[in-house]
Amino acid sequence: MTAPPLANLINALTKLPGVGAKSASRIAYHILKRTPAEAEELAAAIIEVKDPRRDPSVICVVEEAFNIATIEQTRDFKGLFHVLLGALSPLKGIGPQDIDVGGLLRRVQSGDVREVIIATNPNVEGEATALYLAQQLRPLGVRTTRLAFGLPVGGDLEYADQVTMAKALEGRREI
Amino acid sequence: MTAPPLANLINALTKLPGVGAKSASRIAYHILKRTPAEAEELAAAIIEVKDPRRDPSVICVVEEAFNIATIEQTRDFKGLFHVLLGALSPLKGIGPQDIDVGGLLRRVQSGDVREVIIATNPNVEGEATALYLAQQLRPLGVRTTRLAFGLPVGGDLEYADQVTMAKALEGRREI
Repeated sequence: MTAPPLANLINALTKLPGVGAKSASRIAYHILKRTPAEAEELAAAIIEVKDPRRDPSVICVVEEAFNIATIEQTRDFKGLFHVLLGALSPLKGIGPQDIDVGGLLRRVQSGDVREVIIATNPNVEGEATALYLAQQLRPLGVRTTRLAFGLPVGGDLEYADQVTMAKALEGRREI
Repeated sequence: MTAPPLANLINALTKLPGVGAKSASRIAYHILKRTPAEAEELAAAIIEVKDPRRDPSVICVVEEAFNIATIEQTRDFKGLFHVLLGALSPLKGIGPQDIDVGGLLRRVQSGDVREVIIATNPNVEGEATALYLAQQLRPLGVRTTRLAFGLPVGGDLEYADQVTMAKALEGRREI
């Protein structure tokens, strides 16, 4: 007997045109062998393509597919996502060829993209990746932004570390 | 015998013009009875007045004197401080008359202040206070800014709560 989640997926796949029971099984087992990130990316792509509220002119770049949910929770972002499947890390030997930069550049070149929002992690690898992407995107003339650094909402000023406080000061805005 | 910290303060005070041993004792015991915040405010004021690197055209507004150290640690702020000695809190019955708003307005009116940076806590009381101060400062025509909200530096995107993520998205900046 096939486990319910797998059976559900096979069942859903057989409803696609030209996909019989045998193809559906093959696709389902293929997905099963992929990493969770890749599966989530496929799922996100399926949702994106059908959701008419999405704005294709803004692309939010995240490291992993599970970051999509974090940004979706805000309900403030209506654009599309691009999943890099990693971040640059010289220490771990992860270079530009190991993450999906090419796919992002192709998406920007091929469509009417107004803005790329880089939402990589707020750590050393994420920053290095953000700067690299900004460099690669510059010749394409697309507006490239980075999520704001600053004070987390809630709590006291004292909870902010020195680097975050410096960023909060530097990034201050008129009220 | 007088405790060394108190003796040190009395000794330091007697060096001021017109302050004898008796006056120095009286001032020292007065400071001893004040709250730590008030003592810190006086100490900060003494340091500020003598530090030639301070820029009197920028005032950073904090709730308590101990917040000064948090901002000083960044070494990026060279202006003066204004300590409110509290934050607005209808729940605790703290209104505008209970914090030092008047002193701030007088400082802005009397000097060449270019900018007021509001660095109240990133919580409900701090935000209410920031908005109130911005309202009060508006007629004076001074640039009023608030510390940036956003992702704390270090760690993962996933650590940010929903409200902070929304602020990070809204406050995104070009790179």
